[in-house]
Amino acid sequence: MKIILVGATGTIGRKLYDELSPRYEVIKASANRGDVKVDITSTDSIRKMYQQVGSFDAMVITAGSGYIGPFEQTTEEHFYRGIRSKMMGQINLVMIGKDYINDNGSFTITSGILADEPIKGAVVLNTINSALHGFVMGATVELKRGIRLNVISPGMVEDSLEELGPFFPGHIPVPMDKVVKAYLKSVEGVINGQVLRVY
Amino acid sequence: MKIILVGATGTIGRKLYDELSPRYEVIKASANRGDVKVDITSTDSIRKMYQQVGSFDAMVITAGSGYIGPFEQTTEEHFYRGIRSKMMGQINLVMIGKDYINDNGSFTITSGILADEPIKGAVVLNTINSALHGFVMGATVELKRGIRLNVISPGMVEDSLEELGPFFPGHIPVPMDKVVKAYLKSVEGVINGQVLRVY
Repeated sequence: MKIILVGATGTIGRKLYDELSPRYEVIKASANRGDVKVDITSTDSIRKMYQQVGSFDAMVITAGSGYIGPFEQTTEEHFYRGIRSKMMGQINLVMIGKDYINDNGSFTITSGILADEPIKGAVVLNTINSALHGFVMGATVELKRGIRLNVISPGMVEDSLEELGPFFPGHIPVPMDKVVKAYLKSVEGVINGQVLRVY
Repeated sequence: MKIILVGATGTIGRKLYDELSPRYEVIKASANRGDVKVDITSTDSIRKMYQQVGSFDAMVITAGSGYIGPFEQTTEEHFYRGIRSKMMGQINLVMIGKDYINDNGSFTITSGILADEPIKGAVVLNTINSALHGFVMGATVELKRGIRLNVISPGMVEDSLEELGPFFPGHIPVPMDKVVKAYLKSVEGVINGQVLRVY
């Protein structure tokens, strides 16, 4: 199986690479490093990446960001930065990639617990993560050739505790191993159209 | 109570005007007609409208659209048109309007059943309507001065049966009166942060 891992250098992406690379051909894609470069905010860059990589069997995306900061200072531009990155970045990777992926291939995208729970200052991510759940519901029923699509919604992972802990009072950090397993369920399993909540 | 009704000339907006205008001061806002004009895709236009109207007690939004059409032909631009209109249009009306609305005022925005159920060709609206549910969850916990925010998620209303029926096989048309009542529950009631599903 040939897997494109977008966001291979991130907190979750690195662990996924370690897990997947001994068993599969994993192409690391990220903004600045990796086997191929891709700017997920640009459809031109996304198309170029697919043309470079050629056919593949699975794509896993752990890329994209969204603003966390004071609600009163949250602007339209904060929303659009997140929309262009984590929301439409992942959506465009799927919508364009569906023409390049092999029969019975799979896409696994990433949302997060902020789709289900509010924290202070995260209205942009509440919005974007929820949008991604809606996208998976709608796109799944239309994808052809046995192509599957799932979204992993991780809670705050243990590895981010130091950086993100203060933003998530009362949240129990999720073991990274549990998060990695959810991605495996999507990539190696048979499920389709699911939101895998790892909280 | 002074209410700004955005989308006053639409299918639901017209009925809301008939219901609310005998009891309250209702300012009709829409793209081309009404007491004030507003282009909800433009934050400049939104700001101008708020400056024109002055303080108010409630805003009800039944405006904004999103593409329905063949999945294979759905482009990034189809997504962005819906994002700029139904998604960010409503979000910007709330995020900017929170500085103009009176204490204990309320915002009532509109999503739709496509946040919860897929139909053919509606991936853009699945995405956008879901985003609006996430926005309400996140924004509600941050709004100050007793300001409330709810979202009405109507099913296919009876009045749209002829136009939309073929897109919604098996959906039971929702009586307009039931939809109007949900808006009243938000505007005249005390609920906050809720998704009112009228299916």
